[in-house]
This record gives sequence, structure tokens and C-alpha cells, in this order.
Amino acid sequence: MGARAGIVVTGTEVLTGRVVDRNGPWLSDRLRELGVDLETIIIVGDRAQDMEHALSFLAGEGCDLIVTSGGLGPTADDLTAEVVGRFQGREMTMDDALRGRIAKILEGIARRWPHIDLEALEEGNRKQATIPAGATILEPVGTAPGLVVTPSGGSTTPAVVVLPGPPRELQGMWPAALITDAFRLAIKDHTEYRQAMLRMFGIPESEIAETLRRAHDAGIAIDELEITTCLRRGEVEVVTRYEPPAQATYERFATFVRERHAATLFSDDGTSIDDQVAALLRRAPARTVALAESCTGGLLSARLTDLPGSSAYVRGGAVVYSNEAKSDLVSVDPALIGEFGAVSVEVARALADGAIERFGADVGVGITGIAGPDGGTEDKPVGTVCFSVAERDGPRIDRRAHLPGSRGDVRDRSTTVAMHLLRRLLLGLGDLPTM
Amino acid sequence: MGARAGIVVTGTEVLTGRVVDRNGPWLSDRLRELGVDLETIIIVGDRAQDMEHALSFLAGEGCDLIVTSGGLGPTADDLTAEVVGRFQGREMTMDDALRGRIAKILEGIARRWPHIDLEALEEGNRKQATIPAGATILEPVGTAPGLVVTPSGGSTTPAVVVLPGPPRELQGMWPAALITDAFRLAIKDHTEYRQAMLRMFGIPESEIAETLRRAHDAGIAIDELEITTCLRRGEVEVVTRYEPPAQATYERFATFVRERHAATLFSDDGTSIDDQVAALLRRAPARTVALAESCTGGLLSARLTDLPGSSAYVRGGAVVYSNEAKSDLVSVDPALIGEFGAVSVEVARALADGAIERFGADVGVGITGIAGPDGGTEDKPVGTVCFSVAERDGPRIDRRAHLPGSRGDVRDRSTTVAMHLLRRLLLGLGDLPTM
Repeated sequence: MGARAGIVVTGTEVLTGRVVDRNGPWLSDRLRELGVDLETIIIVGDRAQDMEHALSFLAGEGCDLIVTSGGLGPTADDLTAEVVGRFQGREMTMDDALRGRIAKILEGIARRWPHIDLEALEEGNRKQATIPAGATILEPVGTAPGLVVTPSGGSTTPAVVVLPGPPRELQGMWPAALITDAFRLAIKDHTEYRQAMLRMFGIPESEIAETLRRAHDAGIAIDELEITTCLRRGEVEVVTRYEPPAQATYERFATFVRERHAATLFSDDGTSIDDQVAALLRRAPARTVALAESCTGGLLSARLTDLPGSSAYVRGGAVVYSNEAKSDLVSVDPALIGEFGAVSVEVARALADGAIERFGADVGVGITGIAGPDGGTEDKPVGTVCFSVAERDGPRIDRRAHLPGSRGDVRDRSTTVAMHLLRRLLLGLGDLPTM
Repeated sequence: MGARAGIVVTGTEVLTGRVVDRNGPWLSDRLRELGVDLETIIIVGDRAQDMEHALSFLAGEGCDLIVTSGGLGPTADDLTAEVVGRFQGREMTMDDALRGRIAKILEGIARRWPHIDLEALEEGNRKQATIPAGATILEPVGTAPGLVVTPSGGSTTPAVVVLPGPPRELQGMWPAALITDAFRLAIKDHTEYRQAMLRMFGIPESEIAETLRRAHDAGIAIDELEITTCLRRGEVEVVTRYEPPAQATYERFATFVRERHAATLFSDDGTSIDDQVAALLRRAPARTVALAESCTGGLLSARLTDLPGSSAYVRGGAVVYSNEAKSDLVSVDPALIGEFGAVSVEVARALADGAIERFGADVGVGITGIAGPDGGTEDKPVGTVCFSVAERDGPRIDRRAHLPGSRGDVRDRSTTVAMHLLRRLLLGLGDLPTM
């Protein structure tokens, strides 16, 4: 049995859904890299009893390590340090040296906000410097210190790593937690795992279930592999985790999947479609891209420029919601809109070509569609989206798709379709296969 | 003691952070609207034992109702129906009528994917129609039926509502769950809660902690209120939940906050900054807006067009990453870039003016900055972002800000600053106050 961990995310704002938890998933990734088996993520509000029960539950599940996020702020509803102290049988004490170090940080904040209430700052300072006696301090990245708290006396509760809620602070503090003796001792039984991911676009999830059955029937010992499949933003992901002795089994399995899904498998090395499109645009002959977006309203531009260094190949984009903007900005012939309608493959082509011309790019992308909730017709219902990706004086892929879901889903899924069409154009592959 | 609920989110892809859970927060909101107290959200992988322990934990915490999401798919790693059946002491049986209804749905899918493996579909069909005996069926929105499963015999475990993982399916099925007898019985002790939200922009969270202390000192019985504060996308949110008899206390508290934070409070009725900007653009005299974005790469356009009906006031946007695009698309004078640099208030002004001209809009927004991780200088470190929002021949607000965090944080936070500047311009308020 390897090392096991649990995560407790605290915060009424997370429990009530006002804030999306980014810490649970991030910590989950880090623990997996360390070969620690994550049992459970528990989200509780800022109530001491709920937090205590969550800690006890994870201890009862056999966790060797618990990581908490949140509840270290300056306000009275931030209770984590106190609750963890009680859980480990440790008194709370004010650490004067720590208080001084936090005070130094607060001086900087006070300079940024000239009219700030200094008494409020000091009250928060005292609270944040009050920690369980004997805990290991992780120096603040923001103003809150983190803690590693082991049980006092003969108790056998798991070590608890206490981290602040803001993701930037939590992530910045993690390396310091890793090198504490308590952390290393807690995960001493970690297992070596390997993990690999296969990604496909353009098949339903049931096909993967069938692939697993066929792999099993073909004599591949898939029981040695921990395989999970999921559908994400329209892509099917098959993630396999295994211990090193199962490497050969994994390779047989991966080959089996590659053969059965040759037309739709686009990644077997962990790269995302975004990474691949960026790499294809950069590699010789390097090409630049420009966009003209209607229904996606800038989402594809935002997605392409999300990667650092994208200014090397993104020439620019036009968000052309109105017909006038389509004509004025990227020279779509109004007669074309009159004849085929703004949502048509013909207009998508004109958008792609117009983007190439307007921005002087090598490759253009045009998207026009009906994201909803209104604007659908019998012939072009909500979810109808037309795409064109083209190289200047070169190959082109046009596609009309019908995408499911809400306005947000249609807009998001449209960017994924466009990324895949772009990849296929850059690889000289032609349109997506029909399954 | 009112009705209490717990949520179990299943799925290794969620536990390992590959998929962000949208169901927990959504269900949390729905339960709160019903006056049900949410205890805990537990995320577990696709392992039967972990799911069972999560259900037992929530039963032990005194939940009257448990809602599960996920694990109802056609693949063998989808175990929820079986685990919940066992938890409630019910045998699994194939429901032939249900199987027939699912088969009809699958026929539609098979038509969309002409080369699909029919055997795989049928295997999935059998699995998805196998349910705990006596469970109430919630008709599929996708292909998976939901379930409401009560304990068999004399057991006192809470009722379990079993919902599919895809948010669209889960949300579509929720109304059917609500009207089942088992659900209504489980939440019969629900409390009537009221909830209100105050939102501020431009103050640190410590100021709110001080406000709470001062409200207490001023004799406001804030113990009657359940107040949570959080920092989200740079905005401070104060959410208060209370039972109806505390209405007068809440009003005193809200007045106290409004007075102390008059300059930075922008919402006391639950509206978001996005709602407000949309409403301001629509109200007489209706105004249109156009954008020229550099470092945000289309994110602000995407944010403004996220709301249905935004085509009424968003004229369009230009994503002008390169200096050439800035000049070609929105007529930024290259000499200006030469003199002040691309990241400068002067260029932001030219971008806003150019957007107004190019798109024929009433209001223009220009954003230019250094999102990082590279490109910072001593004078303009990473996180420096310049904004200009302007009315055609009218008032204007310019701002140079330094925003913390990663590339993604800087880009996202920039859109929030721009939205607030836009609101203030449309209200005739001038620049954000300095705290």
C-alpha cells in the first residue's frame, strides 16, 4: 500500500460555488507526480466542526498526509490554523518573530493603499501570526504563513500541510512544504507511477468503451492498468496510470488504441491541441495566423494568445459581430451575406480570406454561427457554426457543424473545432473524418 | 435544525484535476435556493470503496439528502448506480422499459455517427438500464437515466439523488428530481433563508474585516448574520445569509457597509459588473462599444459578447498584438509607439479612439500591457497594463495599473479593470478612487 493523501478545501465561497476551486486540482496533480495516491477532495465551509469532521474522515480513510487550502486570511471566519491545531492536540500561540516578518510585508501593502486602516492591518497581523505550538512555518508568499502540523505526543493522526487559499500563494509555498521533514516522512511509502494520455477528437465516448473490451479480448492485460476516459471540451481523453512493471502492457494497449483510432487520435504524448497548433505554426516554414470571428466574439483569439510567445505567430484578430463590421474590417462582400446569410460556409471563407488580407497573415480562420439562445431558424438552428481555415493561395478546409449545449458551450466548442481544423490544415490532412 | 445535504462528485478525471467540476457549485446554488444547508462536497475517483465511504460519511454527518454527480456513463468504470444501490440495500435489475427508451435515443446517435460500433452501443444500453430495484427513474437528457434511491426496508440512510456528470444533462434533469416524493420528503425541514450580496472593487480584503469589527462595535448584531467575504477576480464580495427575522439587522449592516465603502461599492443587488455594463449600454441613450485589445488578445471582446443579446451594443473588436496591426487596423500613429512605447497610456488612448473610428461606435476601449512571462522592463515590469475608455467626442478615463499574478491572471484581471472603467465612464463617475 503506497502513501495516501486527502485534500480539504475550506471556504464558504467555494462550497457555495461563488469561487471555482483551483487548488484541489492543482494539488492533485502535484501529489500524483510525487507518487502519492489521492483519496478524496473534501470541500467544507468556514465552520470549525465541518472542518474537524473532514480531517477525522480522512484520517479514518488511512491517509498519511492531509493538505488543506484556505482559511488563513486576516478575517475571523478564517479558522483553519486553529482547527488543525486542535486536531493535532496543539495549543495556539503567537509567534513573535513571525509576527514581525508579516508586519514587514504589511508595510509594503500599506504603502500601496495610502488610506488603509492600520488598526485593521495589525489585528490581521496578530491573527495570522497565531499558530499551533511546534508547527513548522512556511514563509508567507502573500501575508499568510503556511504550516506543517504533526500530531503532538503519541497521536497517530496524519501530518497536515496548511496552505493559503489564493492559488498564487498556495503554489508559491508548495516547494517549501515539500522539503520539510514532516512531509517527507508522511509520503515515505510513495509508489512510482507512470502516466500517459491519449487524446482523440471526433468520436463518441462509447467507442472507447468498446476499444477497452476489444483490447481485453485480444489478450492485453488491461487489469494491470488504471484507465480512465473522459470527454472534455469535445475531446475524448484516455488517461492510463500504471506501475513500472506494466510498461509493456501499456505499450501494447497504446498500440491497440493507435491502430483502432488512427484517424481521430491527435495526441499520444500529453500535448494539447493548443500546444500542437502553436508548434506547427512555429516550425519551418513558420507561418502567421489571423482570425475573423463572429459568434465566438474573440474567444479563439484569446485562446491562441493564451500561450506565452504567441505574439510570434498571431498577427491579430477581428471580432466582427455585425454585418457592417464583417464588410468594413475584413472586406466580406455584402452581396455574399445577402445571398447565403451571415451564417454560411461562404461567409466563413470570406472571413478567413479577409483576415489573411487585412493582417498580412499566412493562414486565416473564419468562424460564423448561431450561439443562441435566440437567432436559430429551422434551416440553421442554434448551434450551427460554419468554419473556414485557409492558407494564402493554398489549401483550405471548410466545415459546417452543429454543436450541442448552451451559448457558452457552443462558443467554447467552436474554438476547439477551429483548433482541430487549423491543426489538420497545417499538417496537410484535410477535413476531420466522418465517423 | 433544517434540512441538510451533501454532494458526492465522482470521477477520476475530476479528482485528478483534468476536468473542472461544475456540478458541485451548481447543485450548491440550487440547494441553497431551496433552503437546504449544504454540509460538504466530496470528490472521489471511480473506485467503489471510496464512493461508499463518502456516502457513509455524509449519512453520519446527519445529511437528509445526498446528491451524486457522474459515474453513469456506458463504460465499466462508471459505478455509481451500483454503489448507491448497495448503500441503500437494493439489488440491481435491468429495467426493460427503460432499456427500450434509451435504445430509441441511441438510434438518433447512431444516425449521427454512421460508422459507430453498434455492439458497443448496445452493451452501454444494457449497463445504463441496470438500476437499483425500486428506484425512481429520472428520464435521460443525454443517454443516462438519473435515479432517486431511498433505503430499502427499515434503514435510515438519507435519500440519494443520482445524476449524470455532463453539466447539461445534470441541469436538465434537476427539475424532475425536485418533484419526486422522495426528494420532497428528504428536504421537508428546509429553512427559509435570505441571501444578499455586496460587491466592491478597489479595496483590499482587510478593509472588510475592519468593517465587520466596526459594525459589531456600532451595536449591529452581526452574529445573527452568516457573513462570508471573498476576493474574486479582484473584486471583494460580501455575501450574507440570514433567516427572515434578521432582516432589519441585515439592513442596518448593509447601510453601514454602503456608507463606509461608498466610493468602491458597485453592486448591492446581486448584479455583476458584466450585467451592469450591459444594462448601461442598453439604457437610453443606448450606446455601442468597440474594442482594441493588445495584451488581452480578445478576452474582453469574448467577455462582453458572452451575454446573450450583446450584438445589440458590441460593434466589434480588434485584436492588435503587433505594432503593425495597431497601426493598420485602428490607425495608431507609429510615431506614438516610437515615442512612448506600445505599452503606454498614450497608445491605449489611440487604441480606444481608433476602435471608435474603425467600428463607428459610441464608446471605445483600448488595452495594452505586458502579460508576461517575458517582455518586462525595469520601467514597465510584467503586469503593467494601460487602459483608456472614451466616449466619442466626450469624457475619457485613462489608467495605468500594475496587476499581480501569472500571465493568465494579468490578462483576466485586465478585463475586470476595463469593465469597471467602462461602468464608471458610462455613469459619468471618472477614474477609480485611490484608496
